[in-house]
Amino acid sequence: MPSHTDLANAIRFLSMDSVQAANSGHPGMPMGMADVATVLFTKFLKFDAHAPNWPDRDRFVLSAGHGSMLIYSLLHLTGYEAMTIEQLKAFRQIGALTAGHPEYGHVQGVETTTGPLGQGISTAVGMAMAEAHLRANWGADLCDHRTWVIASDGDLMEGISQEAISLAGHLNLNRLIVLWDDNEISIDGALSVAESGDQLLRFKAAGWEAVRVDGHDPEALEAAMAAAIVSVKPSLIACRTQIGFGAPNLAGTAKTHGSPLGMQEIAATRAALNWPHAPFVVPEEIGATWRAAGQKGAKAHAAWHKRLAQHPNRAAFEDLIETKIDPVPLRNLIKAHCAEIAQHAPSLATRESSGAALEVLVPELDCLMGGSADLTGSVNTKVAGMKAFGPNAYQERYVHYGVREHAMAAAMNGMALHGGVLPYSGTFLVFADYLRPALRLGALMGVRTIHVLTHDSIGLGEDGPTHQPVETLASLRAIPNVLVFRPCDPVEVAECWELAILAEQSPSVLSLTRQKLSFQRCEGSPINRSAQGAYVMSPAQHPEKAVLIATGSEVELAMKAQTQLAQRGIGVRVVSAPCLELFEAQTFEYQNEVLGGDLPKIAIEAAVRFGWDRWIGPQGMFIGMKGFGASGPYQELYAHFGITSEAICAAVLGLD
Amino acid sequence: MPSHTDLANAIRFLSMDSVQAANSGHPGMPMGMADVATVLFTKFLKFDAHAPNWPDRDRFVLSAGHGSMLIYSLLHLTGYEAMTIEQLKAFRQIGALTAGHPEYGHVQGVETTTGPLGQGISTAVGMAMAEAHLRANWGADLCDHRTWVIASDGDLMEGISQEAISLAGHLNLNRLIVLWDDNEISIDGALSVAESGDQLLRFKAAGWEAVRVDGHDPEALEAAMAAAIVSVKPSLIACRTQIGFGAPNLAGTAKTHGSPLGMQEIAATRAALNWPHAPFVVPEEIGATWRAAGQKGAKAHAAWHKRLAQHPNRAAFEDLIETKIDPVPLRNLIKAHCAEIAQHAPSLATRESSGAALEVLVPELDCLMGGSADLTGSVNTKVAGMKAFGPNAYQERYVHYGVREHAMAAAMNGMALHGGVLPYSGTFLVFADYLRPALRLGALMGVRTIHVLTHDSIGLGEDGPTHQPVETLASLRAIPNVLVFRPCDPVEVAECWELAILAEQSPSVLSLTRQKLSFQRCEGSPINRSAQGAYVMSPAQHPEKAVLIATGSEVELAMKAQTQLAQRGIGVRVVSAPCLELFEAQTFEYQNEVLGGDLPKIAIEAAVRFGWDRWIGPQGMFIGMKGFGASGPYQELYAHFGITSEAICAAVLGLD
Repeated sequence: MPSHTDLANAIRFLSMDSVQAANSGHPGMPMGMADVATVLFTKFLKFDAHAPNWPDRDRFVLSAGHGSMLIYSLLHLTGYEAMTIEQLKAFRQIGALTAGHPEYGHVQGVETTTGPLGQGISTAVGMAMAEAHLRANWGADLCDHRTWVIASDGDLMEGISQEAISLAGHLNLNRLIVLWDDNEISIDGALSVAESGDQLLRFKAAGWEAVRVDGHDPEALEAAMAAAIVSVKPSLIACRTQIGFGAPNLAGTAKTHGSPLGMQEIAATRAALNWPHAPFVVPEEIGATWRAAGQKGAKAHAAWHKRLAQHPNRAAFEDLIETKIDPVPLRNLIKAHCAEIAQHAPSLATRESSGAALEVLVPELDCLMGGSADLTGSVNTKVAGMKAFGPNAYQERYVHYGVREHAMAAAMNGMALHGGVLPYSGTFLVFADYLRPALRLGALMGVRTIHVLTHDSIGLGEDGPTHQPVETLASLRAIPNVLVFRPCDPVEVAECWELAILAEQSPSVLSLTRQKLSFQRCEGSPINRSAQGAYVMSPAQHPEKAVLIATGSEVELAMKAQTQLAQRGIGVRVVSAPCLELFEAQTFEYQNEVLGGDLPKIAIEAAVRFGWDRWIGPQGMFIGMKGFGASGPYQELYAHFGITSEAICAAVLGLD
Repeated sequence: MPSHTDLANAIRFLSMDSVQAANSGHPGMPMGMADVATVLFTKFLKFDAHAPNWPDRDRFVLSAGHGSMLIYSLLHLTGYEAMTIEQLKAFRQIGALTAGHPEYGHVQGVETTTGPLGQGISTAVGMAMAEAHLRANWGADLCDHRTWVIASDGDLMEGISQEAISLAGHLNLNRLIVLWDDNEISIDGALSVAESGDQLLRFKAAGWEAVRVDGHDPEALEAAMAAAIVSVKPSLIACRTQIGFGAPNLAGTAKTHGSPLGMQEIAATRAALNWPHAPFVVPEEIGATWRAAGQKGAKAHAAWHKRLAQHPNRAAFEDLIETKIDPVPLRNLIKAHCAEIAQHAPSLATRESSGAALEVLVPELDCLMGGSADLTGSVNTKVAGMKAFGPNAYQERYVHYGVREHAMAAAMNGMALHGGVLPYSGTFLVFADYLRPALRLGALMGVRTIHVLTHDSIGLGEDGPTHQPVETLASLRAIPNVLVFRPCDPVEVAECWELAILAEQSPSVLSLTRQKLSFQRCEGSPINRSAQGAYVMSPAQHPEKAVLIATGSEVELAMKAQTQLAQRGIGVRVVSAPCLELFEAQTFEYQNEVLGGDLPKIAIEAAVRFGWDRWIGPQGMFIGMKGFGASGPYQELYAHFGITSEAICAAVLGLD
């Protein structure tokens, strides 16, 4: 029977040899954490390597994603089918499953994409939240797993980690266990060049259990993990390790962090650890023991399937866990909602319209889990009957994230990845900057999260330029695979909610106003016009001189200008463009038809022009912001910055 | 003699009445923190209201910027000339000094713009760093002040606060004192809906002193502040307050946070606090006592001036504290450096070229203070002879910020605001997302910071899409008042450093490669060609068919394509565009001349197209990225994504 050390050394050599073959990568962490990972994967982690998507598996998050060879080695050794030895040999090559950092969707067994530090641990908080929520609603028969994280010093230095651990402590997510690679080394050298704090005390201050163990002592690790799984609090286990463990000359130094060890040191390590096997060769007995570990959850998996098969609400659970949403009833719901609201044609802020849409959606869609970053009353994300999710109330669906935008967005990624939850949450649009790294990661992974971002321009008024986005829309539109919706009235808001909910592989942003807007779509929503991204809201009624393209709050200005120009016999069409990404996806013919071919174009958006030349050309006119905003009543700000129907009319009249 | 309570109530009523007059704002915090602020401003803060820019004043940072009426009241009461009672009456109106959140540069006495939570406390860390640095180098005769912060629960929930306090603890900035408005209320209601941690323990874990006092007990506050100023560690004073203190029906509730109290509650508060005076009327005795407090630092100010006048290096200190940089010797330095390097024409990564420029600049410019977020060896920000800044070495000029990008950028803002330091620092370009809120604030304030952001495209290779920026350049270019430099070779790098150093009122970003690039500017830098943002690097040598516009690493591809096309007798010009913001600032004539009028345009940048239509038009061609990158050797990635000289040639050949 192979020893613990044999099993751990298999990880070490696969990792160092793969990095060497790639001539690129990070051997130090997998070598240092091999003992910890071996104890976790052979003794604790509930998984079935033959069923990577079993919903009740434990989630394992390698927050320190640069140590990707650790997880690739583990996936290979435990028998994940796709992770062949050839894949390890092709580490970091184009097309290989073994990308430089572990990528969700690229390879099974990777629960979330990691690499940007702090994201993994924060995403894991969302996974643990989803688990607690489903367990509360469906019982431990169907949902009874843990979330394990391996985190590095860098993960814990990032500010997002504080947001995440204080949120996890507040929510008392006791099935979240963080294994900290406490190796006292950073890229710049000894960790002490930049860090003097007491991590254990910090975690305790956030309501966690926190202990330190020798990360190379399998018995101590086993005892610590055994204690953690019965802890009534979330747990930190500081695993004191030596980076690059086993390399006789380089272990314990930053040199093992981000470069191959080199052939000479690898040979020396083989000698030191008594591992005579060639690169990529794992002795059969060791391999068999590892593969058996990969199957130790198979029995639990089978039992779970049996319980599911006998569950009275089996189909509902299966739909929920896949977060499948039938578009037909959703369309009907939105259609009815829009028909209803069009009868009253209210002047609402789009944040209020969003709240009204949620009043209809939340009761119908059990998967929706709302929240906000301490702006509940401002972002209208909490609907009637929603109660706070938390200890003793994990069945509830509203999360008070606190002023923790970054961890909020990362946790939303985690919930979406976990399955069974479709998370939406809100803050002010300008604070999208605070959550941007998590949003980017969500876009890269293609997860469905919905960000309700209100107070979306100078229209928020007196709070001034710190709170007034001007570049934020452009900066979000620049991210691949993010849908940026900026609807203009209650009907477009509801349509955009429908589109966001159905966008299974994209995060969405809803950019919404603080200020009230006039109602536009009096016909309701017999078809979802926002689905094409932009459309002619109001054709020209006179000989057509120009095309006005507007989004959100500026659509009413364009409509007003159209009326004013009509009084002078001048025709303009008004194009509403609630989602430029969806418009971009249309055919050129459709785009050209909407944009009126060669007609002069004027775009109106209370934001910077950046990005708009795509639609209006460098010769097109733009009525918007040229720089940061100012503090004052919003109507005065619009006048001050020249974003008015009069300015639009003057622009049209000034055309040759 | 007015009592402490009289003085504090003057703040309370000015604040609540101004908010009421504006019908907008946040009365609860100024009312709650009035006692704390009164003790601070009358007993401890070293300042001279008649000399807001005295370099040796204590810095006061209202991190909880929404409570702006607190600082406006204090500025008015202590006699800052511009802060008249009319300004308070005009709170939150366009053009008033009393903007919704306090804005640096908009009104004297506001040391930094605050409002986005967590920024103030983190910026203050930079101010304290600058103070420690100058004191170490110039002695306490010239530099001997403290940094005081008022922070809210929201400030302390933001992740950036953890980065900031752990950095401050590590650096042992014992002249930094944070007064936490510990009022147990958040916007969503009781703080306990989202927070259960022990803040004092958290600060202690980061190496701070931390105590809790009754925030309405002036004696307890005085004792705590007196202890803090002699502490050998940075200090947190948790001031347990009641939000909206004095309002008989609303105090202690979230309702006082962000809305006027209403006439009725204001009347009730007048009665409860026994303040019979009309709105905006401060009884003369109280006013006189406050104005005397505003002058209590005048003597120290005069003594400081006397010491400065007698200082042997007075002129050097004055230049340094203003961070004045003479452009002529700087130009000569850069010119000589470029001439030297052009002789060897080395193929260097632009991150290496940046390091080479810094080797020349750092010894010449004492104000430069470098650093990195634990990527020193990767971003080439540390030059020969630089040593780590820290306890017992505050005279040094290199900061190991740790993996704390966000606090790093905020601290850089603080250093720049403090004066005497021109901060530069580095991380990977993709991690600009982690520091973006601080960068935005720097742009809004117009402070000079220089961000060395390397590994700026798929050219970083194997680390893959988590680390490969594609949208980051666009997202930075979208921010008003940020100069985004993407130089192509050692000469452009040096020119861009010159421009960044001279950009007194803008943050700059240097986007630099990991991979080596061929040398282009063989003439050196007789004039700084980058200053116009874009220029014709190589005119067409054959009948001109198109214009190639490239930045950074893609300039060499354009140059190669030019050569390949020339072999077929086809002419193209190559425009290098190291800074599109500076190009935008040129005349239309210059822009048109460089861009070749109506000639077809092809832009080449290993990033998304977003924003490029401004220069090439919707019909222009773009060779770059369409989405996220991939993991692999960089040359293969360039080929995989079709960013090659062959692709450029094919695009030119495909033109009609």
